[in-house]
Amino acid sequence: MDPLNTKTKKVSESFTEMNELVLPNDTNVLGNLMGGNLMRWMDIASAICAAKHCEAHVVTVSVDHLTFQEPIKLGDVVNIKASVTRSFNSSVEIFLEVFTRGVLQNISHKSNQAYFTFVALDERTSKPKPVPHVSPETEEEIKRFNEAVVRREFRLVVSGRIKPSEATHSKDFLNR
Amino acid sequence: MDPLNTKTKKVSESFTEMNELVLPNDTNVLGNLMGGNLMRWMDIASAICAAKHCEAHVVTVSVDHLTFQEPIKLGDVVNIKASVTRSFNSSVEIFLEVFTRGVLQNISHKSNQAYFTFVALDERTSKPKPVPHVSPETEEEIKRFNEAVVRREFRLVVSGRIKPSEATHSKDFLNR
Amino acid sequence: MDPLNTKTKKVSESFTEMNELVLPNDTNVLGNLMGGNLMRWMDIASAICAAKHCEAHVVTVSVDHLTFQEPIKLGDVVNIKASVTRSFNSSVEIFLEVFTRGVLQNISHKSNQAYFTFVALDERTSKPKPVPHVSPETEEEIKRFNEAVVRREFRLVVSGRIKPSEATHSKDFLNR
Amino acid sequence: MDPLNTKTKKVSESFTEMNELVLPNDTNVLGNLMGGNLMRWMDIASAICAAKHCEAHVVTVSVDHLTFQEPIKLGDVVNIKASVTRSFNSSVEIFLEVFTRGVLQNISHKSNQAYFTFVALDERTSKPKPVPHVSPETEEEIKRFNEAVVRREFRLVVSGRIKPSEATHSKDFLNR
Amino acid sequence: MDPLNTKTKKVSESFTEMNELVLPNDTNVLGNLMGGNLMRWMDIASAICAAKHCEAHVVTVSVDHLTFQEPIKLGDVVNIKASVTRSFNSSVEIFLEVFTRGVLQNISHKSNQAYFTFVALDERTSKPKPVPHVSPETEEEIKRFNEAVVRREFRLVVSGRIKPSEATHSKDFLNR
Amino acid sequence: MDPLNTKTKKVSESFTEMNELVLPNDTNVLGNLMGGNLMRWMDIASAICAAKHCEAHVVTVSVDHLTFQEPIKLGDVVNIKASVTRSFNSSVEIFLEVFTRGVLQNISHKSNQAYFTFVALDERTSKPKPVPHVSPETEEEIKRFNEAVVRREFRLVVSGRIKPSEATHSKDFLNR
Repeated sequence: MDPLNTKTKKVSESFTEMNELVLPNDTNVLGNLMGGNLMRWMDIASAICAAKHCEAHVVTVSVDHLTFQEPIKLGDVVNIKASVTRSFNSSVEIFLEVFTRGVLQNISHKSNQAYFTFVALDERTSKPKPVPHVSPETEEEIKRFNEAVVRREFRLVVSGRIKPSEATHSKDFLNR
Repeated sequence: MDPLNTKTKKVSESFTEMNELVLPNDTNVLGNLMGGNLMRWMDIASAICAAKHCEAHVVTVSVDHLTFQEPIKLGDVVNIKASVTRSFNSSVEIFLEVFTRGVLQNISHKSNQAYFTFVALDERTSKPKPVPHVSPETEEEIKRFNEAVVRREFRLVVSGRIKPSEATHSKDFLNR
Repeated sequence: MDPLNTKTKKVSESFTEMNELVLPNDTNVLGNLMGGNLMRWMDIASAICAAKHCEAHVVTVSVDHLTFQEPIKLGDVVNIKASVTRSFNSSVEIFLEVFTRGVLQNISHKSNQAYFTFVALDERTSKPKPVPHVSPETEEEIKRFNEAVVRREFRLVVSGRIKPSEATHSKDFLNR
Repeated sequence: MDPLNTKTKKVSESFTEMNELVLPNDTNVLGNLMGGNLMRWMDIASAICAAKHCEAHVVTVSVDHLTFQEPIKLGDVVNIKASVTRSFNSSVEIFLEVFTRGVLQNISHKSNQAYFTFVALDERTSKPKPVPHVSPETEEEIKRFNEAVVRREFRLVVSGRIKPSEATHSKDFLNR
Repeated sequence: MDPLNTKTKKVSESFTEMNELVLPNDTNVLGNLMGGNLMRWMDIASAICAAKHCEAHVVTVSVDHLTFQEPIKLGDVVNIKASVTRSFNSSVEIFLEVFTRGVLQNISHKSNQAYFTFVALDERTSKPKPVPHVSPETEEEIKRFNEAVVRREFRLVVSGRIKPSEATHSKDFLNR
Repeated sequence: MDPLNTKTKKVSESFTEMNELVLPNDTNVLGNLMGGNLMRWMDIASAICAAKHCEAHVVTVSVDHLTFQEPIKLGDVVNIKASVTRSFNSSVEIFLEVFTRGVLQNISHKSNQAYFTFVALDERTSKPKPVPHVSPETEEEIKRFNEAVVRREFRLVVSGRIKPSEATHSKDFLNR
């Protein structure tokens, strides 16, 4: 797909984990973690993961399908897991899952997920540069790798860079 | 569509504008506005807009199609415009546009856009409550109102809450 | 008045509006917006306004008559409006009004006002540079323009740069 | 003057000093301490001083004649000194001086001054409560005590609570 | 050792990892990570680890032997690893190691270590409560477990709670 | 002891005091001052003190025996006092005491103490540079000066830079 960067890396090589504690500082008027603060943490976790995969400085280019299933409470421990799904020339898509646990609870449950896309920049020119391919291994990783083209195509349609009629992968996906 | 809240409000009634200055505090390693910080501001601007439309406390439930066209620099003035597109029972979708201008420049240009979705909560029970309908007026508002069902359906498909084959609005949209 | 910069601009050309949400992060021990945090927002809003009028980098040189009529509560929406009143050689005075609204209320009321003064800096030398004149249009703008010399004179008296007996504008004002 | 609180305290009893280091976090686009951040520190220093004098929770009610003589640089040590000047029924005026010193310099110089006014609140009712009188001792303290009525009167004129013609102390002051 | 809490947990059960990116926000005047900010992150990481081991709210009671081997630079990825070493009645000691990596480097190196001690609080009474024993497994874990009594004794000597002559474990340790 | 810097300075010449107010922003889940935030303030106060003694930029190299006797509450006034104890070639040890007072209380009590060590850096080469000697005067200052060698030796033992058997000062100290 990308003749310019022939390196291929596994998902596990750049997997990144982050743990944070919800402090008063991070909450909204209702006493729960403010959406914008969680996004800030997710941006940092996924940027570390993307930079590790690309071995380059990276900048966020899109955030998609970020969902908030339930409120995260003051004092909860927030565990963010970030892994690459697939790369496209100079960009890479990161899948993020957020798990939440009360301090006095033993079990954490999933509270959020999202897809962040980053572009790798050449250190000297600050222009986009080719990134290593992703080699998915588990069934889950392969599924996310395959569906990445659909998510990418839908991003292009919504932002008006391709016409709905050109979104062939999306049509195939919806007709399955 | 929602028999529980028969009120209808115009887009202009809850339109919200925010101006921020990019300070060293807000930048990333490359000296540009950090993605996560912009998201935090967008979350605040859209929450104010959603609360104004719903006349209720609101919580973020999803962020979609947030794009970063170009880096925003230290010292730039960031202008965020938030308006409702359409409501669905107890949720409301907000369209955000971000415009950026250098301090010494007279013209600002669009640097970002996104869709944030909020759920309105009943003040007493903290349960979701019906929200007013949106009555779009301009051509642009009507287009965003109509396409909101497609964006919503795609959110449901990606999060696995409906099957791809059930996404009838999306198929129609892509086959136009 | 200032032969060095013959440009004249209207108040509306640099009018700046800011909306913020009072988060736990911003409150004092009593659960209300901390005075110092409101000042920080007002400084940003007025700096954006002054920079727009001067088309230059600006630095704060004085803050006067900042009043706090009543406490602003956690969760309130704070709306800051900044407009130029008058310029003096290389400085410009900004008038700020702050309006506050509870999330569940439809009406906002004025909670604060202040006058901030900025000096415009030459981009190359970092020395003060002449700024455009202000052309007031509404009755309110003309009143603020006229009284600006009194406020300025009183600043000079309090800081000891002119003697009380030299404050002729102030005496005229008080004897009206 | 205030029959409700007959206690009298010296200026030295509530004198408060604060030292801060200007970090990247606190700077503006030009690399100097941001005005709004200095105000935030001054608000905290003067609130500690006012609460010590009043032995009560206090809230900021006005900021006047805050001046910025010269830029404070990244890495500078900022020394803030706060002392009461005079009390009026339930309010107290605080005089603030800011001194700045480069890390490698032995001598600090004055960079800012301001007057902050606070109201003391009754702990149970949250209503304003009488505060102790100030007993000035040094020549400087006596001068600030005497001129406090002029500054207060001018605040009332600017905010429209008394007419210019009623500002008798101010007229006397300007005619000296 | 503690008859009140007979539970025993492995070190791995509460092991906690944190990844952070050094942003301009976090640096000192020299452009490196500020010591106090690293301490803030270490406090959060070790509090999460201690709370997980104790299944209780915890408060920091001491920080010891925190070392900074070399400066951590703007843009570096900071990886913090926290694990319990030993518990004493109602307190638990946490060992922290910090590893640092440049964004464009593949290898991280150790930059800091420290011992943080926490006390577990009863949720109802806010009084200290017994905590589970630590069962060390690896050679490294056993060494840290054994030497914990020496570090604890030295803490008690320095804070004056026991006399130097009573520090029998420390004397044995130094005479080995 | 250090032939390279023959200057000697008194403890009082670099004594530094800091006053802070515990705001919601600074608290943990239990509503008390977060340990990590206090550490951040202590790091700033001791860095100002060390820089004043060394007349150089300084970096934190270790934190030892930091104790938290009791929780510091929201709204409390925190008073930090920092003074040099002794210098060693290019490093200097700072003793910190923290005193806490409720806003409505007249008496403050000691809540924390710690020893921070800093290295002075040459402005041009960023290499460690010799620092002035400390000349202790009061009984308390002389005691801290004398015991500084023991604390330093124990730091070296714990970090593995000298063997326990080489810690001769510590053995003497414990056998007193």
